[in-house]
Amino acid sequence: MAEARPLDALNKARDKKVIIDLKNGKQFVGLLRAFDIHINVVMDDTEERVEGEVKRKIGTAFIRGDTIIMISPA
Amino acid sequence: MAEARPLDALNKARDKKVIIDLKNGKQFVGLLRAFDIHINVVMDDTEERVEGEVKRKIGTAFIRGDTIIMISPA
Amino acid sequence: MAEARPLDALNKARDKKVIIDLKNGKQFVGLLRAFDIHINVVMDDTEERVEGEVKRKIGTAFIRGDTIIMISPA
Amino acid sequence: MAEARPLDALNKARDKKVIIDLKNGKQFVGLLRAFDIHINVVMDDTEERVEGEVKRKIGTAFIRGDTIIMISPA
Amino acid sequence: MAEARPLDALNKARDKKVIIDLKNGKQFVGLLRAFDIHINVVMDDTEERVEGEVKRKIGTAFIRGDTIIMISPA
Amino acid sequence: MAEARPLDALNKARDKKVIIDLKNGKQFVGLLRAFDIHINVVMDDTEERVEGEVKRKIGTAFIRGDTIIMISPA
Amino acid sequence: MAEARPLDALNKARDKKVIIDLKNGKQFVGLLRAFDIHINVVMDDTEERVEGEVKRKIGTAFIRGDTIIMISPA
Repeated sequence: MAEARPLDALNKARDKKVIIDLKNGKQFVGLLRAFDIHINVVMDDTEERVEGEVKRKIGTAFIRGDTIIMISPA
Repeated sequence: MAEARPLDALNKARDKKVIIDLKNGKQFVGLLRAFDIHINVVMDDTEERVEGEVKRKIGTAFIRGDTIIMISPA
Repeated sequence: MAEARPLDALNKARDKKVIIDLKNGKQFVGLLRAFDIHINVVMDDTEERVEGEVKRKIGTAFIRGDTIIMISPA
Repeated sequence: MAEARPLDALNKARDKKVIIDLKNGKQFVGLLRAFDIHINVVMDDTEERVEGEVKRKIGTAFIRGDTIIMISPA
Repeated sequence: MAEARPLDALNKARDKKVIIDLKNGKQFVGLLRAFDIHINVVMDDTEERVEGEVKRKIGTAFIRGDTIIMISPA
Repeated sequence: MAEARPLDALNKARDKKVIIDLKNGKQFVGLLRAFDIHINVVMDDTEERVEGEVKRKIGTAFIRGDTIIMISPA
Repeated sequence: MAEARPLDALNKARDKKVIIDLKNGKQFVGLLRAFDIHINVVMDDTEERVEGEVKRKIGTAFIRGDTIIMISPA
């Protein structure tokens, strides 16, 4: 990976499975469908995980960017 | 769902039942009526839930965007 | 209610009794008189409630928008 | 009071005694002398109150807007 | 004091001794030398006080505006 | 190092191993690949460390800038 | 020191040893090399101190401005 801009890396992850770490300690895992410059994100097939355990099956999720710590490939 | 922008996903959820997770740990469940770029949201037939239990019937609710973690179909 | 923009819903609530939930867990109940795009709000005949009990009669109150979680009809 | 904009209500309170509730739970009580669009405020004859008791006599006080929850007539 | 704008009050306090209350509960006391619209502040002969006691002699201090609750004459 | 602007220092660290301290007390260690003016960052070969111990191997990580305290060479 | 603008004071401290107090209670001590209007800072020969004790030798450090309370000569 050699992109100059952070959003290029998110773009490569589009339609792939990602883990999103939230500021409240939870994780969302699912397919990254869309994002914008605020890092607002839409995922499909989303699961909420707390300490590694699946707590909820959510389907499509709109996540507000300012609650996100990190996004990485799952 | 294949939209490029996160707000497109919210637009598809308009007039449908959604769950909104708040930063304070509560949830609002109701019909998504309106939203803007700050993710300020208006819902109808809103219920406040805490740990899955309905705590309040609210009717119409204006929710300030910066208190929201996630919006998903109910 | 079928408005496209969240502030339209606030506009309909003008001069009506509303409940405002704050981030600190308190509520203000009173007549919604004015608001702006930051969701700064002015209420009349305001009461402060904590866990449902009236703690203070305030009269007119200017409330800074970034302290607000939700506004709904009382 | 029937003004359309929240800052109009603050303008009416100019040179009158007001109570300012802060996010840290304290209150400042004094004469409202000046404010701006960030709700930065200047008061004269200011007292700091904690749970209703006067803790400090401050005189003139410049208060940063983002620390304020509410401003109301004293 | 009858200025219309809050920053006018800070301007009058320039080169005078002021107390700055911070969001973390500490105070800085010293000569107000400079400030800007973000309320970033520079003080000289600065002392850090915690619950009224001098904890540190700092000399010149640059203080970031978003950590400040209040500025008042010492 | 004698650059006038902070982002010049980040630019020098590009493709080198860095430690990122987060506001939640965790650290990410990896190769700095990209950053922007918000200090959003992309790393490769990322490890999450808590109190010095590796807790997770993450690979590529997009980190939102407002969660970052410090970035330094590893 | 008689500058009108806070950033002038930071400019005078360039290439000198400074102490930076962070919102998380820690301190960074080192040579101030660069800063910008967000108060993002680069230091060299940086030490992290907790309650006065050196906890880490860091070398060059990029510090995000919104984590900073105060910068003062060491």
